[in-house]
Amino acid sequence: EIQNALEAFFTKPLTLQGVHVLVTAGPTREMADPVRFLSNPSSGRMGFAIAEEAARRGAEVTLIAGPVELSTPPEVHRVNVVSAEEMYNAVTKHLSAEAIVVKTAAVSDYRPKTYQAQKAKKEDGETVLELERTPDILKMLGEQKEAQFLVGFAAETDEVETYAKDKLERKNLDMVVANDITADGAGFAGDTNEVMIMTKEETHRLPALTKRETSVQIWDAVEQNRCKGQG
Amino acid sequence: EIQNALEAFFTKPLTLQGVHVLVTAGPTREMADPVRFLSNPSSGRMGFAIAEEAARRGAEVTLIAGPVELSTPPEVHRVNVVSAEEMYNAVTKHLSAEAIVVKTAAVSDYRPKTYQAQKAKKEDGETVLELERTPDILKMLGEQKEAQFLVGFAAETDEVETYAKDKLERKNLDMVVANDITADGAGFAGDTNEVMIMTKEETHRLPALTKRETSVQIWDAVEQNRCKGQG
Repeated sequence: EIQNALEAFFTKPLTLQGVHVLVTAGPTREMADPVRFLSNPSSGRMGFAIAEEAARRGAEVTLIAGPVELSTPPEVHRVNVVSAEEMYNAVTKHLSAEAIVVKTAAVSDYRPKTYQAQKAKKEDGETVLELERTPDILKMLGEQKEAQFLVGFAAETDEVETYAKDKLERKNLDMVVANDITADGAGFAGDTNEVMIMTKEETHRLPALTKRETSVQIWDAVEQNRCKGQG
Repeated sequence: EIQNALEAFFTKPLTLQGVHVLVTAGPTREMADPVRFLSNPSSGRMGFAIAEEAARRGAEVTLIAGPVELSTPPEVHRVNVVSAEEMYNAVTKHLSAEAIVVKTAAVSDYRPKTYQAQKAKKEDGETVLELERTPDILKMLGEQKEAQFLVGFAAETDEVETYAKDKLERKNLDMVVANDITADGAGFAGDTNEVMIMTKEETHRLPALTKRETSVQIWDAVEQNRCKGQG
């Protein structure tokens, strides 16, 4: 921590001092009964790196994290949640009017319609799990947007740029970070990432970088574009 | 490791020397598409503790592990798997005629009937996930049993003893370790456990113990009962 502090002091101006940053990270789990859930393989590493870099630049960082095995970065306020609904409520609660919101979490879009309080016993043969949509956090953020700067992530397996561009427009985002999770060295669980940073005006392709290096590039891009919007 | 070796040498006879032990641990993940899966909150800690204690007693240990964030115990041969089917195949491959098999893994009993190679796009409203049974590893082990000693685990939320006893009979096991996952200090994700060790003849209730202490008790019980069967 001392090393981080020294590094920040000598090499970086505190470009986000006084800015509120809200980051969501990790997967969510949608329980069908006490022992069975729907989830996804998000490790939370990208979001934790983004929260850490924002704190290093002086921001007031709230990190809303799904169930992951990562320690909280220095100077970050962490809120733990399990389900998409809990994450939605935590985002609503901690959102401020002028925040920069970076939604890296891989939120389950469906959840079991019913929850069985007792562990379901096995039955032979086939069955169906009835699913309903979870609340759409990014859509809500786009709809209520005032002075916030919204950054979404798009994890895609095909037509990455098309889908990401569509998400940017449809959800009223200021920036989308898109990646092809089928590419080598990209995606959910690894330590590296290979992303495109997209705004309405331009697309900037980054090379394969560690998640920490990627987070530096993302914050540089956010700071540039945010000033543009205000100027 | 040196400390473990010294401890083992001076305090424990190598009571399992030359014995093959096969342990399964952790959850499995059953993928619906590249980013969505069914799983459960098993941390793998109980199984890893059991593998470690067996190795400490001199056994040749094969540990078949689902996706968990744990390091491999000393002197243990680890095989990583993701799905129930992969775990089934790994168990079949590594099983030996006289092994002690301890099945701590929380294997998903259902999996999505179809796998979509492309990430499914969200649709509005409700949907269903069609599920089919996964191969039953414990049942297979019970059916093909020759000279193996089979230990199963039963994680229950109610009528723990009844369900566990039933599992012991139905799956042709030699021992069941049963716990009530709704109890405080028991269950999947924590560092402690509170279990019953059951054989056809008797039920032995243990107090709340760390998973390491529990594994010592389980191995003591296995060694006692295994000799009984052979004598």
